[in-house]
Amino acid sequence: EKKLQSVFSKVDELKPVFIERLANAVAIPSVSGDESLRKEVFKMSEFLVKELESLGAYDIQVKPLGKQPPPVTDENLELPPIVLARVGKDETKKTIMIYGHYDVQPALKDDGWDTYPFKLVEVNDKLYGRGSTDDKGPVIAWLNVLQAHKELSLELPVNIIFCFEGMEESGSLGLEELVGREADKYFKGVDTCCISDNYWLGTKKPVLTYGLRGCNYYQIIVSGPGADLHSGIFGGVIHEPMTDLIRVMSQLVDVKGKILIPGIDEMVAPVTETEEKLYDDIEFDVNELNAASGSNTAIYQSKNDILMHRWRYPSLSLHGIEGAFSGGGAKTVIPAKVIGKFSIRTVPDIDSKKMDQYVFDYVNAKFKELGTPNSYKVELIHDGAYWKSDPFNDSFTAAKKATKVVWGVEPDLTREGGSIPITLTFEQQLKTNVLLLPLGKGDDGAHSINEKIDVKNYIEGAKTMAAYLHYYGEI
Amino acid sequence: EKKLQSVFSKVDELKPVFIERLANAVAIPSVSGDESLRKEVFKMSEFLVKELESLGAYDIQVKPLGKQPPPVTDENLELPPIVLARVGKDETKKTIMIYGHYDVQPALKDDGWDTYPFKLVEVNDKLYGRGSTDDKGPVIAWLNVLQAHKELSLELPVNIIFCFEGMEESGSLGLEELVGREADKYFKGVDTCCISDNYWLGTKKPVLTYGLRGCNYYQIIVSGPGADLHSGIFGGVIHEPMTDLIRVMSQLVDVKGKILIPGIDEMVAPVTETEEKLYDDIEFDVNELNAASGSNTAIYQSKNDILMHRWRYPSLSLHGIEGAFSGGGAKTVIPAKVIGKFSIRTVPDIDSKKMDQYVFDYVNAKFKELGTPNSYKVELIHDGAYWKSDPFNDSFTAAKKATKVVWGVEPDLTREGGSIPITLTFEQQLKTNVLLLPLGKGDDGAHSINEKIDVKNYIEGAKTMAAYLHYYGEI
Ligand SMILES: [Zn+2]
Ligand SMILES: [Zn+2]
Ligand SMILES: [Zn+2]
Ligand SMILES: [Zn+2]
Repeated sequence: EKKLQSVFSKVDELKPVFIERLANAVAIPSVSGDESLRKEVFKMSEFLVKELESLGAYDIQVKPLGKQPPPVTDENLELPPIVLARVGKDETKKTIMIYGHYDVQPALKDDGWDTYPFKLVEVNDKLYGRGSTDDKGPVIAWLNVLQAHKELSLELPVNIIFCFEGMEESGSLGLEELVGREADKYFKGVDTCCISDNYWLGTKKPVLTYGLRGCNYYQIIVSGPGADLHSGIFGGVIHEPMTDLIRVMSQLVDVKGKILIPGIDEMVAPVTETEEKLYDDIEFDVNELNAASGSNTAIYQSKNDILMHRWRYPSLSLHGIEGAFSGGGAKTVIPAKVIGKFSIRTVPDIDSKKMDQYVFDYVNAKFKELGTPNSYKVELIHDGAYWKSDPFNDSFTAAKKATKVVWGVEPDLTREGGSIPITLTFEQQLKTNVLLLPLGKGDDGAHSINEKIDVKNYIEGAKTMAAYLHYYGEI
Repeated sequence: EKKLQSVFSKVDELKPVFIERLANAVAIPSVSGDESLRKEVFKMSEFLVKELESLGAYDIQVKPLGKQPPPVTDENLELPPIVLARVGKDETKKTIMIYGHYDVQPALKDDGWDTYPFKLVEVNDKLYGRGSTDDKGPVIAWLNVLQAHKELSLELPVNIIFCFEGMEESGSLGLEELVGREADKYFKGVDTCCISDNYWLGTKKPVLTYGLRGCNYYQIIVSGPGADLHSGIFGGVIHEPMTDLIRVMSQLVDVKGKILIPGIDEMVAPVTETEEKLYDDIEFDVNELNAASGSNTAIYQSKNDILMHRWRYPSLSLHGIEGAFSGGGAKTVIPAKVIGKFSIRTVPDIDSKKMDQYVFDYVNAKFKELGTPNSYKVELIHDGAYWKSDPFNDSFTAAKKATKVVWGVEPDLTREGGSIPITLTFEQQLKTNVLLLPLGKGDDGAHSINEKIDVKNYIEGAKTMAAYLHYYGEI
């Protein structure tokens, strides 16, 4: 505990240095989605290598991932590398794999930023800049933890393996293969993984995240006429694909969000008492949902209903129709081929393949009921599994203790409605558990204009990370 | 009758001259929809004036219509003029207003034409070229009728007032106002109107057209969230506008084309015995519908059912959704605001305003049933009335006789499913009846590549026009 207190003091002392380090990182516009900025993404990887070297990391490997596959403008565009590095080599200590990404979302001043996005600006104890919270802030915070220990000549309480990626905002191309290839090599002996790449639920209470929903995305293709037709000539005399499609799409989900496809709800894991208790302390109410959606369109009013339906129940959304008229004004077309898009968010214990079959069977049955001569097909075009960890395992226990020590409160144990594919990548490839330890607040605006991280979150976050390493090392 | 036979012989004799005249017209690329070709549209109006002058027309007036209203690239773009001309001034004779348009649809060789679209090419007794059938062929055929009479030194059996427009393919801008302004001036004393700007139902039998459906176009606007949302975070916890919209759109029409909005079918005029008989001789079957739609998706198999549902019953088509995801692939968006588009084809005796109210009431009631907190609105964005003439009036009677004499068969009396707005313009502004006297065949390909008119239709069509004038003058 004394050691930890000295680390905390050192972190406070080094605050100006830490902000400077983040400013240097934000100054590199490492936008992975912009081919013309690819050299900046590489520059950012070099920046990390230099920092890691100077902070005592060893066995630093810059793993090339080859050329970026199409679609791409420059056929010879190289993927940014994955930077691997180790700190500590004590075989008696536990080993934690820490993941972060050094690429960022695109940002232009003209998008509506109040300040230049690639210059870190401090206003009212908030640090504004692209990547400040997603994900350069957390990545640099880990480096700050190293520096604090180094300046105190303190050994880390665990061995660390860093894995820093430069393509997260562009589909993490090459990551899964690399992690798979290195699972028994560079990543050998990893006890747990820690990822800081999500956010608090709100703005007041720190959280640890133990679950994510999956997503299966489907399309229904209906086609009839050989080409688009004029509704004056053909309206009323042929079976229109749009009529069929809209009919079937209308039978997938009711207006209260209930999925009408039989069999799916039945696979959902029941709420246990232990799980239900996790919701008791969470700070959240319907007003926060309404503020986030910019409307008063909530289906549920109670905290538990809202959070459970976001986190642990499936949902079905109708996204749109490809091939139909989608412009402004009036066009009297009968579209010849229309493709309806919808997706289902999945949760434990939904069996993804079984669900696919339920969806196909239901949609096909509904078309049969229609008795249309149009041809139809329903297919899965993408799926990603849900993720749920045990929030009472060693890693979460250590992170809870760390949060309590730094923030003075027990963290809320949260899940998220969306998916973070890298979480599954590490869990599956390294056959270990993953902790999501978010640093930033719910209002940080990752991916939007005026992205920021609070100075407090950045600094106390580094302390939380240090304490987490400390307590995990003790278990 | 002898006079008419000499006109027919003259028409046959002048065939090469007539084809040459059409070739000269087609050679002018008078595409009204292409601003860069506007001078060619003007050139085409000058061509007509010269021809009319040389063929004995008088009081030729080239009516300027002022600048083309926005949206337009060149703010000073002048609308093509309307060309008015008279032939004959015998107060004891009837006066027929003849309308045609001298502008054409766009055409590029690269669109897939076998020949250069602005050069008339004769292959297998067909004349290929843009405008050959829509509508330069019919316009020039009227001029050919003048020439035949002139060379025979025969007076026309009626007075003619020509009205040739240069913006038909681009919304007939300025036409309605001009016709209204001139109703009691240039058009004073018009007994009937004849328009040759549609086509035979098929390819074997000539037709006269006595009805067109109208079209009311509606949109349903549903909005909730302040911005598009991510379905991971909001799926299952808010009322999604798409779910509401699809539900309501699915209740507008059933898969067999039955309109589910109460009150509309009840306004449709019952089929009379006289009307039903009109269908007896019409050559048409479900195979022609299937060939035209490029599919076997016909709702009805019998000739009468198909034609009646195309011509004299209303239909409702769902066209698409603005604001929803409409691209390829997968996007997990919850659209914040979606606008569903649909239209209803109207027929006698539907009261357009009453129907609007039925639509609004029904859609609003369906939304109320949903109990959604999203806001919704249904509105009419465009309407055009149906048109139906008495196919037993003097003009139709004369045209039937003319057809019989020239083609040896009674024409089919047809209606069309789409609308030809100019028909209503003349009927309403001149308070007289209109005859649609098509020259070309159903496979002429107006508006598509390889547009053509059969030499036979072009030549026998001119004879039919001459005979129509003759018999109408006799009544
Ligand atoms: Zn991120
Ligand atoms: Zn991100
Ligand atoms: Zn036309
Ligand atoms: Zn046309």
